[in-house]
Amino acid sequence: MISARNFLHFSRGVALAAAVCFFAATLAVAQTDALPSWNDTAPKQAIISFVEKVTKPDSADFVPEAERIAVFDNDGTLWVEHPIYTQLAFALDRVKSLAPQHPEWKETQPFKAVLEGDMKALAASGEKGLVELIMTTHAGMTTSDFQKIVIDWLASARDPKFKRPYTELVYQPMIELLAYLRANGFKTFIVSGGGVELMRPWAEKVYGIPPEQVVGSSIKTEFRMEDDTPTLFRLPEVNFIDDKAGKPVGINQQIGRRPIAAFGNSDGDLQMLQWTTMAGGPARLGVLIHHTDAAREYAYDRDTEFGRLDKALDAAAITGWTVVDMKADWKQVFKD
Amino acid sequence: MISARNFLHFSRGVALAAAVCFFAATLAVAQTDALPSWNDTAPKQAIISFVEKVTKPDSADFVPEAERIAVFDNDGTLWVEHPIYTQLAFALDRVKSLAPQHPEWKETQPFKAVLEGDMKALAASGEKGLVELIMTTHAGMTTSDFQKIVIDWLASARDPKFKRPYTELVYQPMIELLAYLRANGFKTFIVSGGGVELMRPWAEKVYGIPPEQVVGSSIKTEFRMEDDTPTLFRLPEVNFIDDKAGKPVGINQQIGRRPIAAFGNSDGDLQMLQWTTMAGGPARLGVLIHHTDAAREYAYDRDTEFGRLDKALDAAAITGWTVVDMKADWKQVFKD
Repeated sequence: MISARNFLHFSRGVALAAAVCFFAATLAVAQTDALPSWNDTAPKQAIISFVEKVTKPDSADFVPEAERIAVFDNDGTLWVEHPIYTQLAFALDRVKSLAPQHPEWKETQPFKAVLEGDMKALAASGEKGLVELIMTTHAGMTTSDFQKIVIDWLASARDPKFKRPYTELVYQPMIELLAYLRANGFKTFIVSGGGVELMRPWAEKVYGIPPEQVVGSSIKTEFRMEDDTPTLFRLPEVNFIDDKAGKPVGINQQIGRRPIAAFGNSDGDLQMLQWTTMAGGPARLGVLIHHTDAAREYAYDRDTEFGRLDKALDAAAITGWTVVDMKADWKQVFKD
Repeated sequence: MISARNFLHFSRGVALAAAVCFFAATLAVAQTDALPSWNDTAPKQAIISFVEKVTKPDSADFVPEAERIAVFDNDGTLWVEHPIYTQLAFALDRVKSLAPQHPEWKETQPFKAVLEGDMKALAASGEKGLVELIMTTHAGMTTSDFQKIVIDWLASARDPKFKRPYTELVYQPMIELLAYLRANGFKTFIVSGGGVELMRPWAEKVYGIPPEQVVGSSIKTEFRMEDDTPTLFRLPEVNFIDDKAGKPVGINQQIGRRPIAAFGNSDGDLQMLQWTTMAGGPARLGVLIHHTDAAREYAYDRDTEFGRLDKALDAAAITGWTVVDMKADWKQVFKD
């Protein structure tokens, strides 16, 4: 039984506990920098200001939590894409592992070029050669077998420059940004030109992005019952290319609503940023990561085969997209 | 400042508050039936027993929250699909609204059949005629224009038998089931043969399922910049049919992981239930809704054009899927 006096103390106790909690929470918010790897330059300010605008209930730009969709390109935006896309490195390694079962590859392009390390001959095989490489190394097995191949490869493969696993070559400032957006009620999606099945096995662990929030390119799959066991078999046929004008299509197909923030780094992201930011109406955020840091990572933009940033850089100046200068705006590129 | 005596009272207060909260929570759980529209027959027991198995941390069948994916067919599983699919009713109404701009339809099949209400002639136009109807009524506008058309139509269209808006002809027991699963950490998805853009505009409000958790059939779209405004234009070309063997493909494409529970009502859901439940390993749930209630809704299974349940019903007996007998197992079909 609670006496009147005890009840009074009890109430005071509860009020005090609430006050202490509130004070502690306020302090924690004030003291924590959610983006410690970002310098206090314009891009960080633009990102924080946008998030505050869309999350404050009395703001003219307020967006309900369910509609806070943020989309991120992967190659060159969340992880390294030079000297070549990681997916291409995977395909080249796969050709080498499969070569003993394919003696004919010694005399057939583009495989011969891969086995001899002749990048000039490989480039000469053009898009046709590249598609053949991808199909040979990515199709002809079930989805679960492919997933295992990807996980095994990532466990042993090392980036040629940094000598680290590819999944460690993710940008620390972007990892912080993903977490910061999620802490503010955003749902974060990958929207990548890369193969969706190459990202899903590790995106949850590394980025905190679950498989259902990964949009990407894909090959066709076929449902098959094999000895009463249902499988999905990967066919050597393109299903969808999630790049350039394909990105808004992929976003609409899988997410079904327009993002309010988009992050990219190349011309492959141009239409995704347009689709996100140019619909009129309230505040929207478009961000381009500009690779300007030859010392800590790479410096490239208009003149590269992997992640060319040319038209989108011109568009940024007109549309007011935020351009992140990797060298000036990031305190740190990778986790130590 | 807190004296020793006050601190003692304060601690007691906190402990008491915690105890009260715990007790109240326990009571609430014990007293609430999450599935009040279900009779206490075998299907309800099977569903509850499955959910308890996969959510109790010390259970051999425990599934981490992130992997608790449940997929639901729409037509005939979540809402009414007789006398014809709602999407077909939409297409027929659209033909009638567009007819004044198409005088040639008076003499051209399958439009002539629709305008004259000649369902026999419409059926005679076959799949080719049906595809033409769908393309004419679903393509040739932007995605946002189509969304508006769908919302406007649903606001005024009425089901011929029940004289209610289609979005009210959703099954109350299934609405409770969706909420019950979500309360237990499940992520609920629609996986329907119907057009994805016909479901997304209202699925969140009616089912609590956001657009990014709706998988369905689709036509191709094209990104276009029109006067500096980005749009997605709907083309008269099939993109993906999310039915039968297409359902596991669609699930893998958009969700990227295998569900642990699947709910359907027709042969179109057979492969989805196989893919969900026949992988071996821990407990999985497959459920078929059997339309047995001619008085409150409809009774049909092996002999119907819309939602035929034949092969899947045979498979259920072998695989141990739960079959819901609508008449016997549901206290209520629709909300009053």
